[in-house]
Amino acid sequence: MFSVTILGNNSAVPAYDRHPTSQVVSTNHHTFLVDCGEGAQIQMMKYKIRRSRISHIFISHLHGDHFFGLAGLITSFGLLGRTQDLHIFSPGPLKEIIELQLKAGETLMPYQLFFHSIQNAGVLLDEEKMKVECFKTTHRIECYGFKFTEKKKPRKIDGDKIKAYDIPATFYERLKEGADYTRQNGEVIKNEWVTEAAPHEKIYAYCGDTRYEEKLVRYIKGADLVYHETTYLDNKREIAESRFHSTSRQAAELAKKAGVGKLLIGHFSSRYEKLDDFETEAREVFENTFIATEGVSYFV
Amino acid sequence: MFSVTILGNNSAVPAYDRHPTSQVVSTNHHTFLVDCGEGAQIQMMKYKIRRSRISHIFISHLHGDHFFGLAGLITSFGLLGRTQDLHIFSPGPLKEIIELQLKAGETLMPYQLFFHSIQNAGVLLDEEKMKVECFKTTHRIECYGFKFTEKKKPRKIDGDKIKAYDIPATFYERLKEGADYTRQNGEVIKNEWVTEAAPHEKIYAYCGDTRYEEKLVRYIKGADLVYHETTYLDNKREIAESRFHSTSRQAAELAKKAGVGKLLIGHFSSRYEKLDDFETEAREVFENTFIATEGVSYFV
Repeated sequence: MFSVTILGNNSAVPAYDRHPTSQVVSTNHHTFLVDCGEGAQIQMMKYKIRRSRISHIFISHLHGDHFFGLAGLITSFGLLGRTQDLHIFSPGPLKEIIELQLKAGETLMPYQLFFHSIQNAGVLLDEEKMKVECFKTTHRIECYGFKFTEKKKPRKIDGDKIKAYDIPATFYERLKEGADYTRQNGEVIKNEWVTEAAPHEKIYAYCGDTRYEEKLVRYIKGADLVYHETTYLDNKREIAESRFHSTSRQAAELAKKAGVGKLLIGHFSSRYEKLDDFETEAREVFENTFIATEGVSYFV
Repeated sequence: MFSVTILGNNSAVPAYDRHPTSQVVSTNHHTFLVDCGEGAQIQMMKYKIRRSRISHIFISHLHGDHFFGLAGLITSFGLLGRTQDLHIFSPGPLKEIIELQLKAGETLMPYQLFFHSIQNAGVLLDEEKMKVECFKTTHRIECYGFKFTEKKKPRKIDGDKIKAYDIPATFYERLKEGADYTRQNGEVIKNEWVTEAAPHEKIYAYCGDTRYEEKLVRYIKGADLVYHETTYLDNKREIAESRFHSTSRQAAELAKKAGVGKLLIGHFSSRYEKLDDFETEAREVFENTFIATEGVSYFV
């Protein structure tokens, strides 16, 4: 199980105490930051996020409301004495942008900063327990979504049963992987007799900024939790399309087509003071929809 | 009379709900922004500052806590449909930094942005009613303070008295400038008989980031209000000096030497949760000292 904590749910111009996009994805082993709008570090303090644990930052695209908080966060890490590496993934010239600012301030970092340039859909990180992939969305500039998969755990051995069946300890690893055990006399001990299935792998998909784009279905299919932008209500569908954004109804339609578990919506235009209508509109199409609320953690 | 509103009073790492440096200087004719740390635009909304009125921005130096909020503010102005020119003054490659970010987002502005490079002490703006000058401070990188002078108003004509003395209307402008009136018969009408003095010119001096620097006295001498950084208390004087910052006592000593009216202190290190000691320490040397408090306007 892992979680997503919302730091900002607004679109470009901050308003009504809503902040530009940023989210923290926390697992037992990692703290990831997804986008980093202005004020993200201040929101982290407000919501008691342990900033120092952030190891990887994924930036969907280089519109300011998704990365203008990054230079401040990086600098604060340095001033706070961070020594662990920091990995930043993004399309576009983010490295040049950050390095130019650090150079202007003659700022030396006590830690190493690694920039990873995203140029295509693919796997960004593949570790024992977590995989992070990116996929292209349809926005005014190059933009990516991110898919976080907490890998399926090994099967769980039932201590009493393996004793009863007298299976040697050297075979335990194979059992966890799902193998049957065959005795020298040919007798087969079926794996499911002595192990229990682990929970299925958990998936969170973050769809960045995007126009309604049906091809995203194949990336987010079956995800437990999906975040999709809904900059506008559906009566502003034309504006949404012209600006490469989505409406609440469109996000819900995509969630329904992809058969996801739960839909989070955000990136609301500053023209909307109240957000209730976004939830109402989306729920007409996809019941399990929720407003991405700042400071709230959603479990995957 | 004009005013200074504090948007941020902390040093580089935001803490205890204190924000990095930014101030608004408001006159009847202008709204100036002085430094623009991360979150400045959000603070402006919180304190109901009319952002759209800002015409000139003065950046003291290119450490992030003094300008990381600028790209967001500039972008928001564009999204809000601003059409009036914006003038930005700073040392260092600020133009390159901002333009690289706007280019990465393929952002076109509906208004004109003018960058003015500060390379020496001097006059930045000289208008009928307001003059803005800059002076060099002593910091780790090139840094400037700013001096705002609301020019002396013309003398005020007493309508009854000029009638009584029968002075022709063509001479009124000279009267406002302080000239005596001489009749054809040689009789002199003293200016002070028919006019009243205007209030003296008002001065606000913002000292940027700086080590204790006695040469600043000549720039801030006699100012009505001075803002001076006090990153540390005086028992951290060595740290302050090594980092090109000042202590509370040092700021007060400078204010006393310069004979200023009132001293505002800020840019507090995140190591201090409470700020009372800063005021206490400074007041031992210079009584009229106040903590620069976020959201508060100080009249000059």
